[in-house]
Amino acid sequence: MVSNTAGKVIRCKAAVAWEAAKPLVIEEVEVSPPQANEVRVKILFTSLCHTDVYFWEAKGQTPLFPRIFGHEARGIVESVGEGVTDLKPGDHVLPVFTGECKECQHCKSEESNMCDLLRINTDRGVMLNDGKSRFSINGKPIYHFVGTSTFSEYTVVHVGCLAKINPAAPLDKVCVLSCGISTGLGATLNVAKPTKGSSVAIFGLGAVGLAAAEGARLAGASRIIGVDLNSTRFIEAKKFGVNEFVNPKEHDKPVQEVIVAMTGGGVDRSVECTGSVNAMISAFECVHDGWGVAVLVGVPNKDDSFKTHPINLLNERTLKGTFFGNYKPRSDLPSVVEMYMNKELELEKFITHRVPFSEINKAFEYMLKGEGLRCIIHMTE
Amino acid sequence: MVSNTAGKVIRCKAAVAWEAAKPLVIEEVEVSPPQANEVRVKILFTSLCHTDVYFWEAKGQTPLFPRIFGHEARGIVESVGEGVTDLKPGDHVLPVFTGECKECQHCKSEESNMCDLLRINTDRGVMLNDGKSRFSINGKPIYHFVGTSTFSEYTVVHVGCLAKINPAAPLDKVCVLSCGISTGLGATLNVAKPTKGSSVAIFGLGAVGLAAAEGARLAGASRIIGVDLNSTRFIEAKKFGVNEFVNPKEHDKPVQEVIVAMTGGGVDRSVECTGSVNAMISAFECVHDGWGVAVLVGVPNKDDSFKTHPINLLNERTLKGTFFGNYKPRSDLPSVVEMYMNKELELEKFITHRVPFSEINKAFEYMLKGEGLRCIIHMTE
Repeated sequence: MVSNTAGKVIRCKAAVAWEAAKPLVIEEVEVSPPQANEVRVKILFTSLCHTDVYFWEAKGQTPLFPRIFGHEARGIVESVGEGVTDLKPGDHVLPVFTGECKECQHCKSEESNMCDLLRINTDRGVMLNDGKSRFSINGKPIYHFVGTSTFSEYTVVHVGCLAKINPAAPLDKVCVLSCGISTGLGATLNVAKPTKGSSVAIFGLGAVGLAAAEGARLAGASRIIGVDLNSTRFIEAKKFGVNEFVNPKEHDKPVQEVIVAMTGGGVDRSVECTGSVNAMISAFECVHDGWGVAVLVGVPNKDDSFKTHPINLLNERTLKGTFFGNYKPRSDLPSVVEMYMNKELELEKFITHRVPFSEINKAFEYMLKGEGLRCIIHMTE
Repeated sequence: MVSNTAGKVIRCKAAVAWEAAKPLVIEEVEVSPPQANEVRVKILFTSLCHTDVYFWEAKGQTPLFPRIFGHEARGIVESVGEGVTDLKPGDHVLPVFTGECKECQHCKSEESNMCDLLRINTDRGVMLNDGKSRFSINGKPIYHFVGTSTFSEYTVVHVGCLAKINPAAPLDKVCVLSCGISTGLGATLNVAKPTKGSSVAIFGLGAVGLAAAEGARLAGASRIIGVDLNSTRFIEAKKFGVNEFVNPKEHDKPVQEVIVAMTGGGVDRSVECTGSVNAMISAFECVHDGWGVAVLVGVPNKDDSFKTHPINLLNERTLKGTFFGNYKPRSDLPSVVEMYMNKELELEKFITHRVPFSEINKAFEYMLKGEGLRCIIHMTE
């Protein structure tokens, strides 16, 4: 199947961020054909993640505008560039902000998913092949974002950043697996690895933290302790298996001491999903000596310093970090989609809002207000 | 077999530390019979470890004198107290400074060896059963040290702190497995777990560090990089598989940067055996992103703080600590003895000095001068 647009520039709608923190504008853009090892994808559904908002606000980040954001999505291959053999037009794909070249030492390692070639690069706004953008308006380039730029009806992505998935999976649900949900889920299932009947503390009950809780529920943990500064989040969190709750503001001692006391020595596992360095330290110090494992997921500030007394480590605690839940995008995401298809993983509860593409700025408003978890943007409406 | 001394007080020779940092004095002591869950052991060979010297010097530690030090040893059971069914007179045993009750949550966990009941306690100078010492001179009690006090011809030990080993193992060699050598070996084999052909950095080339290197050699690591402030140690270290050497003093950038540069991104594993918090930080920061694991073994000072940028963790590095190489004393030490019997593990190269019991203070002098690795003290000479 070859589309009749293959090899040609496609004109379509995209939500362009012209400057930091200003509403996106739906514009007609030109999308060039894919070059070597690139794929042009028709985006059907996309969702909004904190990372989009973070770089759109560009507080402390290198501002790069005009830019097309978006990195959680589901689409269908429209055409492929030279050398692409894994994908063909019509394949269903999840674009991912980090890639898997399958050639570098990280891709060849069973343990790492931090591909040397396609590891996330938030400062790069162009394609690797020629150092140029595939998007333009009247010939003026519009920058890419983390190699995905899914807030466009069509986008061009490196083949290493596309996971080919089961075409029977519902288009409007599995798009959330491109980023946050897989990050939290994998942090628990692939890295913390709680055993059946164990205890797990989850720091931060946003979408990533709730996905980490979902992982603990799937693993059969019996005590899933949610930690958040906002107590109203506990209600929603119950749906994800969280059955105990601690608000650090309601205690006059450090939260790690509260958790150690309530569990008789500490939790078996903890997963930190806020990015606050103090929460990281608490998450580490609340695990049990002898076997406790703390997993860091949240992204810290540039100048943060993680500090602890080394005896906490010597007492046989483990501290690990993870990136994208240790999933290799191309190799592992198809099986996460299957977890959903087999009704183990529940995705519906992460989807709290839906908007048509024309109202994409509403998705930003929901996130800025802290309302809901994921807002699905319907590209064809 | 019941010895004719069972149930009676034994008078024998012991090396008593009357006060901090003063030479030990060989005295005749009375050793009471073992009480419930205790075993009286005839010590044949003992060796000196840094920990003995550390508490004998009592700098910054709670001084507890008069005391009988010693915790690396090999002996034969003389008699057993009530309730002891695992051991009988004549059994060959290694006394260990930490125990395994087989009942607590740590002993029941597959991952932990930090027994709740018998975990090392350097401040306690008495037996658990009645809170009293089994040693006395003219009725005046002499304190125990870490439940072992092996600088005595006879000692009383909790049954949970005795590993029953193959009686065919040479008495004068396997005594070193009671502490330091198992600690280093287990840190590599049980915790760092390097794979065949991998790279391992060892920080500190004393007995524990060389045992960690021996573990890396046994695991088939191809690059074993020794790090020490004393370059002369590299010569000896070659016997233990160390094939590259870095002296941090010879470089004008942090040693972690030197190691990252020489390995193209970092070592696969590192093992820290000095106890210096700066070496701990270097050992962590020199492992490769994506899969590197750093294992802390050395005991830090009370006021130390481990500091690193959390991004070092998020880039999929793991930081763990270990206690006694994660070996459960009773369950696991017999198999370490078998590794020696099968000629995999080489113990002879750790034994650099031998002295008769009457010259035990010489062993202290060798250690204080930093001479050699292990000095075996022959109790019957």
